[in-house]
Amino acid sequence: MAEKNEILTLLTSQNPAGLAQLTEEFHPADILEVVQDQKDYSLLQALPDSFIADILDEAEDEDKYEILKSFNRERTHSILNQMSVDEVTDLIEALEEDNREAVIAALGFRNQNDVKKLLAYESDTAGGIMTTRFIAIYASNTVMGALNYLKTDVDAETGYYMYVVDKYDFTLKGVVSLRDLVMAPFDTPIGDLLNPHVISVHVEDDQEKVAQVFSRYGYQAIPVVDGDNRLVGIITVDDVIDVLNEEFTEDLHHLAGIGKEEKVDGSVADSVKSRLPWLAVNLVTALAASFVINLFNGTIEKIVALSAVMTIISGMGGNAGTQTLTLVIRALSLEEIDRENARPILLKELGAGLINGAAIGVLVAGIAMFYDANPLFGLIAGLAMVLNMLCAAAAGYGVPILLEKLGIDPALASGVFVTTVTDCMGFFIFLGLATAAMPLLV
Amino acid sequence: MAEKNEILTLLTSQNPAGLAQLTEEFHPADILEVVQDQKDYSLLQALPDSFIADILDEAEDEDKYEILKSFNRERTHSILNQMSVDEVTDLIEALEEDNREAVIAALGFRNQNDVKKLLAYESDTAGGIMTTRFIAIYASNTVMGALNYLKTDVDAETGYYMYVVDKYDFTLKGVVSLRDLVMAPFDTPIGDLLNPHVISVHVEDDQEKVAQVFSRYGYQAIPVVDGDNRLVGIITVDDVIDVLNEEFTEDLHHLAGIGKEEKVDGSVADSVKSRLPWLAVNLVTALAASFVINLFNGTIEKIVALSAVMTIISGMGGNAGTQTLTLVIRALSLEEIDRENARPILLKELGAGLINGAAIGVLVAGIAMFYDANPLFGLIAGLAMVLNMLCAAAAGYGVPILLEKLGIDPALASGVFVTTVTDCMGFFIFLGLATAAMPLLV
Repeated sequence: MAEKNEILTLLTSQNPAGLAQLTEEFHPADILEVVQDQKDYSLLQALPDSFIADILDEAEDEDKYEILKSFNRERTHSILNQMSVDEVTDLIEALEEDNREAVIAALGFRNQNDVKKLLAYESDTAGGIMTTRFIAIYASNTVMGALNYLKTDVDAETGYYMYVVDKYDFTLKGVVSLRDLVMAPFDTPIGDLLNPHVISVHVEDDQEKVAQVFSRYGYQAIPVVDGDNRLVGIITVDDVIDVLNEEFTEDLHHLAGIGKEEKVDGSVADSVKSRLPWLAVNLVTALAASFVINLFNGTIEKIVALSAVMTIISGMGGNAGTQTLTLVIRALSLEEIDRENARPILLKELGAGLINGAAIGVLVAGIAMFYDANPLFGLIAGLAMVLNMLCAAAAGYGVPILLEKLGIDPALASGVFVTTVTDCMGFFIFLGLATAAMPLLV
Repeated sequence: MAEKNEILTLLTSQNPAGLAQLTEEFHPADILEVVQDQKDYSLLQALPDSFIADILDEAEDEDKYEILKSFNRERTHSILNQMSVDEVTDLIEALEEDNREAVIAALGFRNQNDVKKLLAYESDTAGGIMTTRFIAIYASNTVMGALNYLKTDVDAETGYYMYVVDKYDFTLKGVVSLRDLVMAPFDTPIGDLLNPHVISVHVEDDQEKVAQVFSRYGYQAIPVVDGDNRLVGIITVDDVIDVLNEEFTEDLHHLAGIGKEEKVDGSVADSVKSRLPWLAVNLVTALAASFVINLFNGTIEKIVALSAVMTIISGMGGNAGTQTLTLVIRALSLEEIDRENARPILLKELGAGLINGAAIGVLVAGIAMFYDANPLFGLIAGLAMVLNMLCAAAAGYGVPILLEKLGIDPALASGVFVTTVTDCMGFFIFLGLATAAMPLLV
């Protein structure tokens, strides 16, 4: 950004006018980046607490506390109480026990209540990403009343939607968009404008489901209700983008067999902790495959060319299995597979496996005959390739669907099972056929 | 949804009051789903054209045309002209040549111009996902004037932000949020409210970059400017959620070696077209590995246990390589790797490779001695495992970074190169060491 220098100049200038311009015209995320590039949080000292709070809202959970510590006790308290409660909650969750108490103690009564409520929810649920600061009005209000209320409420995270709740039990009655408000005569009662069919999510819904709701309806914000349909918070779409990035990373990491929390710039110890268990699991797969090979030692001793060809058949099966697997896993998380299309999809995968197997099988047969000119050797290699591709399609389709049914994250565990199948079956079919045809091969 | 039945009842009732309620209170996406569940687009006939247009905005590009065809020529034209221009553009891009002309011809002058503009942009750029319907005002307007203008403009995609442009050359001068408007006195000039430091994207920016801008700033909408900083469109955050889903599917598919467009419920022919090329590429890898094995036929003939153990060493190397690879690819697309941390990350990966290699190596040594009790055989297997893990770390880190530098999508091509390294090196190191130590092994 060319604006970086402008921000830095204004920050260092320390003159009130400049700092005022900074807080009015620049995004906290940009100012935070400049300060972190300079590795000097003291640059923030001259900014007003309310704006420091906005900057903290933009910071990584791990950095929030570092930044806070650069201020004296009094300012720290004032800043904490001006941050959005969901960010304070994230901050607290990133701290060790004793620091947590200190932060919570520093909060005012209302904030303390809100934060304690939010801390009660799993961080990957609607409750974990929602904010408790939203605009709720009663149906009896008029447009003018609502607009005035909006002007006075400074805390609300978004003013784009106003949610209409019951005066007595706070259950969600409907929604009115700010757009509707400004386009209606000022004396219109909210009751005439509200839409009772408001889309909401449950406070315990998984954040991935929340993201799907946003993607389906394209709303800017969605209300969160508890079991009694009481309005307990809202989620804004900008938070959902972070959720999607987080979920994507988690899926990718699981598919590759690394912990979802592992950071590319983390420590060696963290990497080992995150990956070694998974490698150990894969070792079991490799061990199983090696057992299968060991069964046929006698055959390999006589026809050593088998050892060069067998890795092609197991490897290509693994590739094909991963193709099907990935397609199915993505489809499952996008909820694209249902009772109706499950069977056609399986048949399609088997069909593709057969055709790809035949095509690759012909090439493999040719390669095999390069190692052992006997046409039967080529035929066996080609046939084994086709059969292993069919196993790959069946496993690549069946494993994730089965795991999903068992309530296990398919992204996490499917790969290892599918490769076990393609490795073991690949070796078994190929070496088995070769053993059966032995007399004709040597 | 429990509301599905309510929607279906209202749709089939055909009474005006019920249909009016349907269009006022329910989301087009829900109504579309009900109709598609019923496989009967004729259910839409009684709805007003403007609402059909909203429903088409929600439909998959492939379905839009099918739905349109269920209406007579006159209504089709009226519906087309009430759809949002970016959706019409997507519809047109999904059609064959001759149908395209027909649709474009059916558009009114203004829509035709907008659509032709949008068709000029790549579909995965800011221009490809933006809408040309936004609210732009002049700094000389007052708050009241702006609010009245807002009430009259029915076309705008979002009313949450108003962009302030130059009266003469339409260059972007600043932004005013609707919230600021309703909170300011009615006679305030827009010039006093506007923020000149408006975050915008360039019309040719990649949609992935656009998504990052939204994730960074958490805005509801972002303006799109051309080379001369003229305001040409806006992108709303709800479109960005679809972009993220699309980009992630693309990355996943590329990592697994399937075409980004492949659908889980597609045809066998499409699957073969999407996957066979990639399998062919992987066959080259497998072929290379088999060549390496073939080099050591003599050794394997004498020590057949090698063939059971070698697949463990190549396979585990492949797993470790994929772990590093995936972490690095995700970090690259989140722009988490820069000059400063590149070297430490590489060292961290090598360190993790060494430790994981040692741990797995010990187990592999044990497994090897199960197949051939000679301790030296176990030692060689363990050593080969450690070395191959180091190769895996180096390749898993180096390949994606190199490809990124060369302007090739790392997700697309990294995997095949890394497995080539881990397979060939795994076999070469293990069989090579065994050949060297042959006299002591047999």
